[in-house]
Amino acid sequence: MNEKRIVIIGGGFGGLYAAKALRRAPVRITLVDRRNYHLFQPLLYQVATAALNPSDIAAPIRSVLRKQENVSVILGDATSIDLDRKLIQLADGQLAYDILIIATGATHSYFGHAEWEQNAPGLKTIEDALEIRRRVFLAFEAAERESDPERQRAWLNFVVIGGGPTGVELAGALSEIARQTMLRDFRRINPSSARVILIEGMDRLLPPYPPDLSAKAAAQLQALGVEVMTKTTVTRVTDHDVAAGETIIPTRTVLWAAGVQASPLAHSLGAPLDRAGRVLVAPDLSVPGHPEVFVIGDLAAVMQSDGKPVPGVAPAAIQEGEHTAKNIVRMLDDKPTLPFHYRDKGSLATIGRAAGVADFGRIRLSGFIAWAAWLGVHIFFLIGFRNRLLVILQWAWAYVTFQRGARLITDPRSVGVSPAADGRLARR
Amino acid sequence: MNEKRIVIIGGGFGGLYAAKALRRAPVRITLVDRRNYHLFQPLLYQVATAALNPSDIAAPIRSVLRKQENVSVILGDATSIDLDRKLIQLADGQLAYDILIIATGATHSYFGHAEWEQNAPGLKTIEDALEIRRRVFLAFEAAERESDPERQRAWLNFVVIGGGPTGVELAGALSEIARQTMLRDFRRINPSSARVILIEGMDRLLPPYPPDLSAKAAAQLQALGVEVMTKTTVTRVTDHDVAAGETIIPTRTVLWAAGVQASPLAHSLGAPLDRAGRVLVAPDLSVPGHPEVFVIGDLAAVMQSDGKPVPGVAPAAIQEGEHTAKNIVRMLDDKPTLPFHYRDKGSLATIGRAAGVADFGRIRLSGFIAWAAWLGVHIFFLIGFRNRLLVILQWAWAYVTFQRGARLITDPRSVGVSPAADGRLARR
Repeated sequence: MNEKRIVIIGGGFGGLYAAKALRRAPVRITLVDRRNYHLFQPLLYQVATAALNPSDIAAPIRSVLRKQENVSVILGDATSIDLDRKLIQLADGQLAYDILIIATGATHSYFGHAEWEQNAPGLKTIEDALEIRRRVFLAFEAAERESDPERQRAWLNFVVIGGGPTGVELAGALSEIARQTMLRDFRRINPSSARVILIEGMDRLLPPYPPDLSAKAAAQLQALGVEVMTKTTVTRVTDHDVAAGETIIPTRTVLWAAGVQASPLAHSLGAPLDRAGRVLVAPDLSVPGHPEVFVIGDLAAVMQSDGKPVPGVAPAAIQEGEHTAKNIVRMLDDKPTLPFHYRDKGSLATIGRAAGVADFGRIRLSGFIAWAAWLGVHIFFLIGFRNRLLVILQWAWAYVTFQRGARLITDPRSVGVSPAADGRLARR
Repeated sequence: MNEKRIVIIGGGFGGLYAAKALRRAPVRITLVDRRNYHLFQPLLYQVATAALNPSDIAAPIRSVLRKQENVSVILGDATSIDLDRKLIQLADGQLAYDILIIATGATHSYFGHAEWEQNAPGLKTIEDALEIRRRVFLAFEAAERESDPERQRAWLNFVVIGGGPTGVELAGALSEIARQTMLRDFRRINPSSARVILIEGMDRLLPPYPPDLSAKAAAQLQALGVEVMTKTTVTRVTDHDVAAGETIIPTRTVLWAAGVQASPLAHSLGAPLDRAGRVLVAPDLSVPGHPEVFVIGDLAAVMQSDGKPVPGVAPAAIQEGEHTAKNIVRMLDDKPTLPFHYRDKGSLATIGRAAGVADFGRIRLSGFIAWAAWLGVHIFFLIGFRNRLLVILQWAWAYVTFQRGARLITDPRSVGVSPAADGRLARR
């Protein structure tokens, strides 16, 4: 009897938890990812702000699944899917499947301004995080060298676009860098004179959260020295300024935390997509007309019973992955699949040191205890005991010493900094 | 009374220890480096083999020198030196000095075959280490995907060129990766079938060490499964093979640990250079004819009383830096400078897990105790208590679990792997 071949594209939260949930099923699973590691995205902003290393928040997928005998992991880049022939086209090969789970996630969206990307990197991958880290620390170095006061000011203005959890966490961390981490390291500049400006288009930060938590988050950020601009739309991003509402902010460091769109793989499916390119899936998360193809995680547009879409967060991807695994087992037993229901366990955001907000439905927390909850939840879901131990230690160290351990400016494309002739440190 | 301006170019062992040794001198020091961190090079091979993170072996220079009030650190790239005008040309500015210490170190030498560099990366910088890490782990991934047996074999052959301490340590670590770290992670390949071949042109490994220790090192490597080829010269390095002596080895992963040359800055000095481009300094480490300019570390060719040159190792750079600081203080007091005498404290090399060789003159060690000595010495000289703690923990973890914590394949230049159309994973 031939075992069904399950292919899972993507080793993030959705794909990885789906694979693990199928560990006892009589199937042969192939998990494909174009990276060799699973990335704990919620902590990416800590790599971007030099608090953690890339390897602290990543685990090699084949290592995580090493003991699961029915799964094989391969490194590959899926470019399109032929639903009729049940064939996945890889950049360098093909994969046939009986049942397919697509979990390739989301990437940045610049709202039609793709040209902003080079001046305002987003935060979805380790490479993004390292690029942001590089720019932030280079900015302080450049300010130290700069004698013109206006140019120096521009190097010390940091703009974060997007007031969701990522933007809030980035802005809080940047403010800590300026006011604590770098405090006595410079001779010509005073790092705490750096401005961190957080811009959000809606009327409050953390729009999906309850309004009182949004207000607490804003207050905590302001206590850290972050300038919060809500109801403000960014109309221009260049390599030397940002136009936000009526204001023009001279800045050399802009970080993008404002929009996501689905991975391009969805387009080859021929399935209905929403505005952000996500697949409008059936209630059981399958592609309409193709019950053997499932889409989960950030790539899927799943409607909840209240008409709101399931948010693009890790717990949702995990639940969808596990639910799909259950449905696949039901299919193997010729049972009908079940519709997916998202159980919102709550939302968290951390704001600098020992502060944050947390919403668990009936319980809402802010300040230190929210921060502690945030720490606990993230450690719990971080994969790998070694990673957990190292992250806990580094967090403890940072808490006591106010220091950051990963302040390297690295650049693999060439040796060191390449300052331009006119005195500006060239971005590459 | 004007304080003398000391400029130190280079924040490696030589420059950093010189700066620290001048902490009580009545001078104004500027330390320039084109990186923002001090790198503990002896442990670079551990970043290359995924045992440690870049930030574990690097410390931001301005952070290390934060408390020393007479020193200011700037990020800059020195391109040439005008000895007559006492002016350093930076890529984006100039620096005037009264006394200059040049400590810019060494880079790789390919013995006139610069074209080999792209196929055989060396190990001098963090970027080098990450590139090597990327290639090594990609090779296993490519082998897992490759169906042609000959091509698969080439992916599983790893060649290290150069049998000094760096080559020996790399070869030992690669063998551990193949035989321990990756053991159950693959389904189609058996990682322990990987061959690690170490090629040395002289008649034994570790040529500067006593012959009996060279023999022990070779024996320990062979116990790890490394194939050692001595008295063998490499005549060709391509992207698919290496010609070594009479043998042609099909391989996709070649690592260069064979030669160094001095940093190009030396050429602008107009001073006498040796064959490797190092400055032939006076006995007090100054440039002949320019008593206010000192050259230390790997950039200097210093003769010992026995006619042999001081080796390009960290302890030598440290001693030269501290000696130069003493001489500068003497100059400020109008005293004559003293000649430098290198005190060889011994040599160490580690060979995989719990093995190594150590030569402390009258005491020679091999095996487990040499490895323990190696650990102790390296931890002692690693800068930063936090770094020491994290490195100790990661080493302890790796020892117990046989695992490596930093197995990421990262590539900042583009997203993920870019496989070529013919099935080979493209190198970038």
